[in-house]
Amino acid sequence: MDYSRVFTQAIDRLHAEGRYRVFIDILRNKGAFPNARCFAGHNGPKPITVWCSNDYLAMGQHPKVIAAMEEALHDVGAGSGGTRNIGGNTHYHVDLEHELADLHGKEGALLFTSGYVSNEATLSTLAKILPGCVIFSDELNHASMIAGIRNAGCEKRIFRHNDLAHLEELLAAEDPSVPKLIAFESVYSMEADVAPIAAICDLADKYNALTYLDEVHAVGMYGARGGGISEQEGVADRLTIIEGTLGKAFGVMGGYIAADQTIIDVIRSYAPGFIFTTSLSPVLVAGVLASVRHLKQSSAEREGQQVAATLLKTMFDEAGLPVMLGSTHIVPVLVGDPVKAKRISDILLAEYGVYVQPINYPTVPRGTERLRFTPGPSHTPAMMRELTDALIEIWGRLELRKAA
Amino acid sequence: MDYSRVFTQAIDRLHAEGRYRVFIDILRNKGAFPNARCFAGHNGPKPITVWCSNDYLAMGQHPKVIAAMEEALHDVGAGSGGTRNIGGNTHYHVDLEHELADLHGKEGALLFTSGYVSNEATLSTLAKILPGCVIFSDELNHASMIAGIRNAGCEKRIFRHNDLAHLEELLAAEDPSVPKLIAFESVYSMEADVAPIAAICDLADKYNALTYLDEVHAVGMYGARGGGISEQEGVADRLTIIEGTLGKAFGVMGGYIAADQTIIDVIRSYAPGFIFTTSLSPVLVAGVLASVRHLKQSSAEREGQQVAATLLKTMFDEAGLPVMLGSTHIVPVLVGDPVKAKRISDILLAEYGVYVQPINYPTVPRGTERLRFTPGPSHTPAMMRELTDALIEIWGRLELRKAA
Ligand SMILES: Cc1ncc(COP(=O)(O)O)c(C=O)c1O
Ligand SMILES: Cc1ncc(COP(=O)(O)O)c(C=O)c1O
Repeated sequence: MDYSRVFTQAIDRLHAEGRYRVFIDILRNKGAFPNARCFAGHNGPKPITVWCSNDYLAMGQHPKVIAAMEEALHDVGAGSGGTRNIGGNTHYHVDLEHELADLHGKEGALLFTSGYVSNEATLSTLAKILPGCVIFSDELNHASMIAGIRNAGCEKRIFRHNDLAHLEELLAAEDPSVPKLIAFESVYSMEADVAPIAAICDLADKYNALTYLDEVHAVGMYGARGGGISEQEGVADRLTIIEGTLGKAFGVMGGYIAADQTIIDVIRSYAPGFIFTTSLSPVLVAGVLASVRHLKQSSAEREGQQVAATLLKTMFDEAGLPVMLGSTHIVPVLVGDPVKAKRISDILLAEYGVYVQPINYPTVPRGTERLRFTPGPSHTPAMMRELTDALIEIWGRLELRKAA
Repeated sequence: MDYSRVFTQAIDRLHAEGRYRVFIDILRNKGAFPNARCFAGHNGPKPITVWCSNDYLAMGQHPKVIAAMEEALHDVGAGSGGTRNIGGNTHYHVDLEHELADLHGKEGALLFTSGYVSNEATLSTLAKILPGCVIFSDELNHASMIAGIRNAGCEKRIFRHNDLAHLEELLAAEDPSVPKLIAFESVYSMEADVAPIAAICDLADKYNALTYLDEVHAVGMYGARGGGISEQEGVADRLTIIEGTLGKAFGVMGGYIAADQTIIDVIRSYAPGFIFTTSLSPVLVAGVLASVRHLKQSSAEREGQQVAATLLKTMFDEAGLPVMLGSTHIVPVLVGDPVKAKRISDILLAEYGVYVQPINYPTVPRGTERLRFTPGPSHTPAMMRELTDALIEIWGRLELRKAA
């Protein structure tokens, strides 16, 4: 067994497919986001504009968030020092769980170290607790849900993306007595589209299934208090479990679920990914508390973001760029080839000081490689004009396909 | 299917076994650790002394760590805003990976959101890359390694704890051409004992196996620069992969692996648990950088911790308490019953203001329930005397088994 040959071959495959990834070494400038600095390579070090952050509302630089983190840092220190059960449960954690339960109108909430872990741990544990459970999963569900479902070791049925008829067909084919769980997202961040939540809940009622909704790209962003699409559409109470991240619109790091108290208690007591790990640093938790509380009562950031997204989509569309026009805040532009997507991104960074990452397989299906722009309230119309002009120039230079 | 009955029964089972867990709601006092505050319940709110933190060296309150985090908070903001590949790779991440690679004398290192995720993601991915791989796993390995091995879906062989003869027997029974990986820990934190690393590496050489060493409870703690038991014993270069946490002796949060560049590249490129998640907040990374750098050149904390551990073990031993006398910094006291372990812990908190968590199944095997004390450089001899006297009183009151 020649181990290093196997490892080298695995890397060679990525190079051959043009999807070997290189980290772009950046530092954001707090207070000046989306401005940042880029380090070695790419004609750097130099200032750049970030167009692909998931800190959608720039809450990562909000004065209230920074102040809360600074206070916690000085009050309790850097880390929690333990798992939630053993020494790592702070009053901040307890407070934040109450705040998140309230955000979604649920009895309880549970924090995890990331959105990824919340999906993996909850789905794999739920399916183990429910004997013979079958999980119905949207084909475009995020890798973290896929991991949870696979690690559950249960039966799964994949329904076509947002396809209610296909979902119903699969539900109807199962024995009515078998436990069922429908797992899906509200905003699909690579497609920029939204699931028919109420209609999925109707099917769940009809076939006695539980529902699990990933609102990672919607919490903080939609609904009067930032409770996500489920708040905006008034259906939060119909969902068994709502899952979210603290690392995108809330601007910090971490993940959570909200549900009724018994389910929270089951996951808290049985999920290894929750139990056997150091809890979130109280510094992060304090920052999220400030962020969630602020976005519950302020809609200015959400509105600013929507205005920016609409403007950028219009500019791209008028320029004939192949923008994928969804109803959400995300602006993907289809390229359809991993090498070209990377080439555009490289030119943007080296020649225009614009940072946008190419999105390649396995994040999106092969042949649908794209650039994914995330305009926010701090991206100005002038920045958008520059970006659009840069793309027009590059599209011409590389003779890329324009919109149909 | 009555879902809520299934969930309620799952919780009832925990109550019946006396191992339903209640979070203790605390806030540490920075600068005054191990002092903390405890909230509602337990005769609180009131000040307490923490005896079960894994912030072994009190680095979570070290002035250099706090200053570095504060600077990063003001310089770049709260969160990274993206995955390592998409917008979330900061210069702090790059620097810390260099620092950790250097700590273990390896070519590269890779950060994860936690030690749990580093184990799960690395082991499950490695075994998928190596066709037909068999993993040899110590029976007392941590839940995160067990999760990684199970999620790998490969063959596994469990060897008796630290039993070289049994490990060799299992290695010898496999086809020589099959890829093999031995996964083990250096310090077993619940047993307080240490693996025979060099001898395991000898077996790995003999049977052409890779080695994976979890140094979670040893990094920062052992070796001239805090490189762990593998540094102390001069065997770091013999291990294929060394894994550690940033949330225990380093005092913050996060996890990592160190290995040669090709392996780092493989995990970086293929592990879903690494790829599809928001990267560590730069605030945390900045704190860890300061902590690792400090512990590379200062041994005072390590020495203070060893002195404290030796003193506490001696006091417990002289008092006839059933302390498990290992060679490490951890001081477990065997109780052997989940209800009694919890009762002792409850009395300590309510009557003595001492916080130590009972350790029950599934963290340790049933029948070996224990209290686990983690003295550090800031626990004074007077605190130890008080603690020992409290335990002597409780042992008498509850008529508990003394040392043999
Ligand atoms: C739909 C979805 N769910 C979950 C996650 C994971 O969340 P986190 O970054 O907090 O781990 C992501 C992205 O990272 C995501 O896009
Ligand atoms: C041996 C061992 N490995 C890994 C971990 C996980 O590390 P982290 O807390 O950083 O997730 C722990 C404890 O939490 C542990 O005890």
